[in-house]
Amino acid sequence: LSLTRAHIPELPAMAALDLRRWLVALLVGSLAAVQVAGGAPWFWPPGGDDPGGCLSWRVMVEANNAKFWRAVPAPCVGYVWAYMSWGQYGRDVSSAADQIAAYASQAPAGDDGLDAWVLDIDDTCLSNLPYYQAKQFGAYDPAAFKAWASRGACPGIPAMVRLFWVLKGGGFRVFLLSGRDEEALGASTAANLAAAGFAGYDRLILRSAGYRGQSSVVFKSAERRRLAAEEYRIRGNVGDQWSDLQGDNAGDRVFKVPNPMYFVP
Amino acid sequence: LSLTRAHIPELPAMAALDLRRWLVALLVGSLAAVQVAGGAPWFWPPGGDDPGGCLSWRVMVEANNAKFWRAVPAPCVGYVWAYMSWGQYGRDVSSAADQIAAYASQAPAGDDGLDAWVLDIDDTCLSNLPYYQAKQFGAYDPAAFKAWASRGACPGIPAMVRLFWVLKGGGFRVFLLSGRDEEALGASTAANLAAAGFAGYDRLILRSAGYRGQSSVVFKSAERRRLAAEEYRIRGNVGDQWSDLQGDNAGDRVFKVPNPMYFVP
Repeated sequence: LSLTRAHIPELPAMAALDLRRWLVALLVGSLAAVQVAGGAPWFWPPGGDDPGGCLSWRVMVEANNAKFWRAVPAPCVGYVWAYMSWGQYGRDVSSAADQIAAYASQAPAGDDGLDAWVLDIDDTCLSNLPYYQAKQFGAYDPAAFKAWASRGACPGIPAMVRLFWVLKGGGFRVFLLSGRDEEALGASTAANLAAAGFAGYDRLILRSAGYRGQSSVVFKSAERRRLAAEEYRIRGNVGDQWSDLQGDNAGDRVFKVPNPMYFVP
Repeated sequence: LSLTRAHIPELPAMAALDLRRWLVALLVGSLAAVQVAGGAPWFWPPGGDDPGGCLSWRVMVEANNAKFWRAVPAPCVGYVWAYMSWGQYGRDVSSAADQIAAYASQAPAGDDGLDAWVLDIDDTCLSNLPYYQAKQFGAYDPAAFKAWASRGACPGIPAMVRLFWVLKGGGFRVFLLSGRDEEALGASTAANLAAAGFAGYDRLILRSAGYRGQSSVVFKSAERRRLAAEEYRIRGNVGDQWSDLQGDNAGDRVFKVPNPMYFVP
């Protein structure tokens, strides 16, 4: 070690012994900090630590391997909270929105006004994160969710607001298709969408009384068939649930927006 | 700060000034280490840092949003190497295998010997990681891949070897269905499977000359239709590519094994 007092003029009072102590302390402090930082020094790979298997679980959800789960697994509640709230979720949604916009620009709308995109609403356009945080990502609670949704206070998801305007600007019809109950939540949903920046969509399609109690795939397939019968070509379909993206007339391409908060069959 | 010399008897020679210096150095060292560790102190959330968007990209691949890519994006080669080689991939495959085994136990095989599972081979049962590492996860190179595969040296993927035996033990027929060329790679593939622990499968179905040049979805759909025509019920279908899992007779449930190394249309 060739470092001597002469190299550190701002510490003139230090003896050689002090310098050695200083360097040892620096080393000890560094190792302590690395331990405290979760055992992840710089040479450790990204995602190399996954206590509780929560990263695995989240990816399995996105790949549609994990199905029919009723709530976030207890060991992963903290992980999901951090994922949703601290930046990675926002980056993942932005990444999806970029891909969708890139695809839409490769398959542009024709002039006849019949090229359409279908977007889901909950946790695709509007975020229910504040509600699920308050519920600690617990199981679905229909009454509490209805009370939350009827406030019309869901924040818009920024990357999806941007995508919405990109699609509209590209000349596509944009249909918003949601399993929300039309009678109970129609007015608050329309107001919420407007407040969140979704203006000028072509149709807001909610669950009418006749579809109450039916699965999302059945209801959404029926509504998409209806659009196809009107000669709309569903160029793309975007949702946070695989049940948005499967069934009849699913669309030329489907895009899954991340959502590790809940599962809709 | 109530900490004094008296609390640290193992440092008897230290003056009060030394102690203060020691603590400052500890703090500086800690902050330096946190910076070096990629800006991820302990209070930072899991996955909170994703330089290059590689974690987003990988999840988009698994969710089938990112399609038709020809090679791992250059900024993500190091990330994919680390993901594949340092533990997270193994944990993700194990997680998938656990889910598959759990589903198979919920939908057990009947007594007629017609309940079947279809497993893909490359990067589902056998790993091509050593080959793709050597190629730096570059674009598909048919001649080099054929040379690698004909060596019959692919390691078995441990979680999938286990799953294979769980399915066999559960009384299912297990069909291995791969787009590998039957004429060129039939013998080496059979030898490789045997060496890797896959013994006693019911049929090894490779790409016969008539399907050369056809897409994976077309070839695999045709082979699955053939199984269905023989009255096999495809209870589950496991592959590392979405093209393994789409098309005709895809199976009652499909499971996507992670693979951020390459995309097969």
